[in-house]
Amino acid sequence: MPSLQDTLNEIVAEMAAQTERGEVASYIPELGKVDPAKFAIAVVKNDGEVAAAGDADEPFSIQSISKVFTLALALGRVGDQLWNRVGREPSGTAFNSIVQLELEHGIPRNPFINAGAIVVSDVLLSGHQPREAIGEVLSFMRTVADDDSVIIDRDVANSERATGFRNFALANYLKGFGNLNHAPEMTLGVYFHHCAVAMSCLQLANAGRFLANAGRIEETGHTIVSSERARRINALMLTCGHYDGSGEFAFRVGIPGKSGVGGGILAIVPGVASIAVWSPGLNARGNSMLGSIALERLTKRMNWSIFASR
Amino acid sequence: MPSLQDTLNEIVAEMAAQTERGEVASYIPELGKVDPAKFAIAVVKNDGEVAAAGDADEPFSIQSISKVFTLALALGRVGDQLWNRVGREPSGTAFNSIVQLELEHGIPRNPFINAGAIVVSDVLLSGHQPREAIGEVLSFMRTVADDDSVIIDRDVANSERATGFRNFALANYLKGFGNLNHAPEMTLGVYFHHCAVAMSCLQLANAGRFLANAGRIEETGHTIVSSERARRINALMLTCGHYDGSGEFAFRVGIPGKSGVGGGILAIVPGVASIAVWSPGLNARGNSMLGSIALERLTKRMNWSIFASR
Amino acid sequence: MPSLQDTLNEIVAEMAAQTERGEVASYIPELGKVDPAKFAIAVVKNDGEVAAAGDADEPFSIQSISKVFTLALALGRVGDQLWNRVGREPSGTAFNSIVQLELEHGIPRNPFINAGAIVVSDVLLSGHQPREAIGEVLSFMRTVADDDSVIIDRDVANSERATGFRNFALANYLKGFGNLNHAPEMTLGVYFHHCAVAMSCLQLANAGRFLANAGRIEETGHTIVSSERARRINALMLTCGHYDGSGEFAFRVGIPGKSGVGGGILAIVPGVASIAVWSPGLNARGNSMLGSIALERLTKRMNWSIFASR
Amino acid sequence: MPSLQDTLNEIVAEMAAQTERGEVASYIPELGKVDPAKFAIAVVKNDGEVAAAGDADEPFSIQSISKVFTLALALGRVGDQLWNRVGREPSGTAFNSIVQLELEHGIPRNPFINAGAIVVSDVLLSGHQPREAIGEVLSFMRTVADDDSVIIDRDVANSERATGFRNFALANYLKGFGNLNHAPEMTLGVYFHHCAVAMSCLQLANAGRFLANAGRIEETGHTIVSSERARRINALMLTCGHYDGSGEFAFRVGIPGKSGVGGGILAIVPGVASIAVWSPGLNARGNSMLGSIALERLTKRMNWSIFASR
Repeated sequence: MPSLQDTLNEIVAEMAAQTERGEVASYIPELGKVDPAKFAIAVVKNDGEVAAAGDADEPFSIQSISKVFTLALALGRVGDQLWNRVGREPSGTAFNSIVQLELEHGIPRNPFINAGAIVVSDVLLSGHQPREAIGEVLSFMRTVADDDSVIIDRDVANSERATGFRNFALANYLKGFGNLNHAPEMTLGVYFHHCAVAMSCLQLANAGRFLANAGRIEETGHTIVSSERARRINALMLTCGHYDGSGEFAFRVGIPGKSGVGGGILAIVPGVASIAVWSPGLNARGNSMLGSIALERLTKRMNWSIFASR
Repeated sequence: MPSLQDTLNEIVAEMAAQTERGEVASYIPELGKVDPAKFAIAVVKNDGEVAAAGDADEPFSIQSISKVFTLALALGRVGDQLWNRVGREPSGTAFNSIVQLELEHGIPRNPFINAGAIVVSDVLLSGHQPREAIGEVLSFMRTVADDDSVIIDRDVANSERATGFRNFALANYLKGFGNLNHAPEMTLGVYFHHCAVAMSCLQLANAGRFLANAGRIEETGHTIVSSERARRINALMLTCGHYDGSGEFAFRVGIPGKSGVGGGILAIVPGVASIAVWSPGLNARGNSMLGSIALERLTKRMNWSIFASR
Repeated sequence: MPSLQDTLNEIVAEMAAQTERGEVASYIPELGKVDPAKFAIAVVKNDGEVAAAGDADEPFSIQSISKVFTLALALGRVGDQLWNRVGREPSGTAFNSIVQLELEHGIPRNPFINAGAIVVSDVLLSGHQPREAIGEVLSFMRTVADDDSVIIDRDVANSERATGFRNFALANYLKGFGNLNHAPEMTLGVYFHHCAVAMSCLQLANAGRFLANAGRIEETGHTIVSSERARRINALMLTCGHYDGSGEFAFRVGIPGKSGVGGGILAIVPGVASIAVWSPGLNARGNSMLGSIALERLTKRMNWSIFASR
Repeated sequence: MPSLQDTLNEIVAEMAAQTERGEVASYIPELGKVDPAKFAIAVVKNDGEVAAAGDADEPFSIQSISKVFTLALALGRVGDQLWNRVGREPSGTAFNSIVQLELEHGIPRNPFINAGAIVVSDVLLSGHQPREAIGEVLSFMRTVADDDSVIIDRDVANSERATGFRNFALANYLKGFGNLNHAPEMTLGVYFHHCAVAMSCLQLANAGRFLANAGRIEETGHTIVSSERARRINALMLTCGHYDGSGEFAFRVGIPGKSGVGGGILAIVPGVASIAVWSPGLNARGNSMLGSIALERLTKRMNWSIFASR
């Protein structure tokens, strides 16, 4: 069996040969500037092994991947009370759909669609100024990545604020249903900034270690969440992490994952490894096209699917 | 750590003490006659260990659990062409919703909602008389359960035929979109009969062995499906196996499962075990109330969640 | 001011010059055989004047126009109790949509969409054999048209029965919600036959006289419905008579009308005239393209809009 | 036949005896302060006769009734180009639904639901400051009412701005689809202010004269819109003027009308009269409960239904 590093090198070579790379998201103007030829993959195993290939040190906008971390933070803040305000079911609709919200009276289906993540941001804002809440998210990202160089890209945050009318619609809609405790623009301030966290694949794979390892980071000795909570976040990533492409991702790749419109995916092999992949072009469902293919090949070659007899 | 048998006994005792047991499905008159106090659980491990408790030898109507097996059969018949006619995404709606079907032009979201399973039945009917197709399903159930005493309960099948207007609506709707090759009443003949298969928890846990064991049944030497197909069916069970309660089941229980309106659930711990549980009362989502709770406790106590670091 | 007959002749000439004539409905195979070049218009005024032009003596399949007459019959049978089973609001969706039916628990929005008309047929079937109910509809059509040569085209009825899967879906869905008292195929037998009534524009314009004249037919001395009921049926034709194109028809033409997929439209100028027009090609909303244009020109030139200061 | 004034007096007496008066809208706090016992009705006939009864001189918040007038203004500004941005069909949903907007890609169904009226406000804002656009609306209201004492109630406008999260959601949603040319808060500034126009029933009935009289006000010699446009606005009021209760209003009352959440209704008998009625309590569809009943009785007693043989 080839080594993990050999497998990653192989995959990077295969992806470089792909001509169909999807479309780079352009609805946030800053994101549209990214080079579609970029590709990176990084794996951090529970046993300490680290392997990476491609542009694995280059930061990109993690966008919705940040929702995994804000969920962990918000659960730490209010515990299972969060589930009174957000559901735990796949949405069956696009990431920014408002239809579901009307039919279900302002309760977003899960914390990974935009409406749900806005409610999570609202929880993080409780008792804080937006600046403080944003600082707390950044500090958390640095802790889990064990890297103080992680930053928030203000240009991306501002670009999204200037064009994110659908998110303003969602936040106002939530407010209209009484499911937002702060002014929409305040809550969205937190939301746009945590989506604008920039990380490399190596940083992101490190940041996901606690989910692969029952809530703990062995290297730093931190317990981030309980093992039960880690398990449950993984379950949510599996059922809801790829919007209306979550079933397909489970079917093909077979591990929990959360995608971002910047082309990144964080994927977790519980008990084994945390994986980050990045390719800016998106498929029709809004998930990284080559990132998904790369992860499918990786889990197959390593026999890492959680649905397989390992 | 207590033995598996001790754990099952414990769970049976705990469930017997539960006063809130849900509602027995009554829309199929025959099902409404079942005693709500029944409870059974059975586990068949890949290593050959078998444990059971409660009414584990008493047959019940497996209903939608049969869709796992007809899916395996249909994939064996037409392979991945099936996915041109059925999707692989959670539905976000009730098991018998017709709304999704209209919005998505006659392509059911997945093979486990009624509309999708009707298309699967239509595949099984190709080139056969309904009687032959039904015979093939029954024969397959006997093979995977390794038990020739498995039968189809004709009273249940007839009861469903006489009252299943929604399923007639779905089948005619599919036909209207050109996604049914046979007359609706022919295809539904197959559908109603495979839903009426009656099995005990022990039989059902045996029938699920191949999904826990990469497609093979070691005891009989049969390879039922490829390891890749077993893995993918497990993924579909996880994301779509409990209708609009699939996310909740993944969140709480953490393993692939398929429920039936008769109160049964088949659940798979890939690489480890096949589990069947039965309690007739249903929760608001139409899934066995105590069956879900029992599985949540079992996977927690055995650390069997696929989302945990085992 | 030109005479009514001159105006009709003018309109027939203008319509003959139109090159864009819409698409002839083909989902009922028998209807697809009709010559798209056909065009007819007939007006019967309350004061006894009759004018017609084009193929005004040639029978065509009135299809959904029949729903106006079955509604009048059913109201005569059960009165306002009918409104417990059918609504009175425009649907905002296509004529054969099933989505609305699920969201509103089996109560069709109005008696002119298919689901609503099927409920009306079910009312007509009460206490009768299908053959009798169909006979009663035909007899009513002959009475209001004052013409015993009106027939039902059995080929069209059979063609629709053989291909009307959506209507079977709707009927079974209604049955599933308890809003159908007879077997779906029995009720649909009535429905398919009343849709298959064949009439010429002259016959149809005569059949509509009672709606233009407060419920009475002066020529025959019959009172068909009360003046209040005539007024209310006219209101329903205005708001719901052209499916999801009803607003557009009111905006452009400005009088109550009911279209059929055979290309006919019955339109009423309350207090003034009954109008029938026929052109087989349909617009995107499923209503006669040239029929709508012809009526727009006629009401404008005669100043017949009910929204205008006459 | 009793005189018009007698009929109005009679209706006022009947309405005073009604115990079930509906619910005063409270989602705009300022509106919730209105006395539910208020009732007024006023009729201005084309022949110059004026009759009124009840609190017909007391101003109330006309709310959505203003949409009839902003529509007339916007059509005057951009003509039929408006229809590229707004539809002309009944919505089949609540007044502030966002579902339709997503399914139809940002094109509101008609100019009388909130989303459509916001687009109309956006048209009025073109080339103006909000203050100017608001001034233009007020000036138009004074012209058609022929009364310079008509004002905008700033407290109501501010109350709505402070709590109108759904309208902010709609405006941002429209903006996200590219169907808003100005910043959402700018356009909503116009919208909230025109909804806050306060008028008495007498003023409002006067303001509607041009719709009853082919676009002209005889008393002042002004032509407000063309006769064709008056006719078409009346048609839109009939099909879309009472949200998802428009069909019911047409069925029962039988004339074009536009309701407001303040409890007012403007109704038009084309060629005959303009009517204003006010009772603050609303029915389940959000339309004035007693206002609707009063209009039903008035049109019946005067034989004013446009669907009747007058």
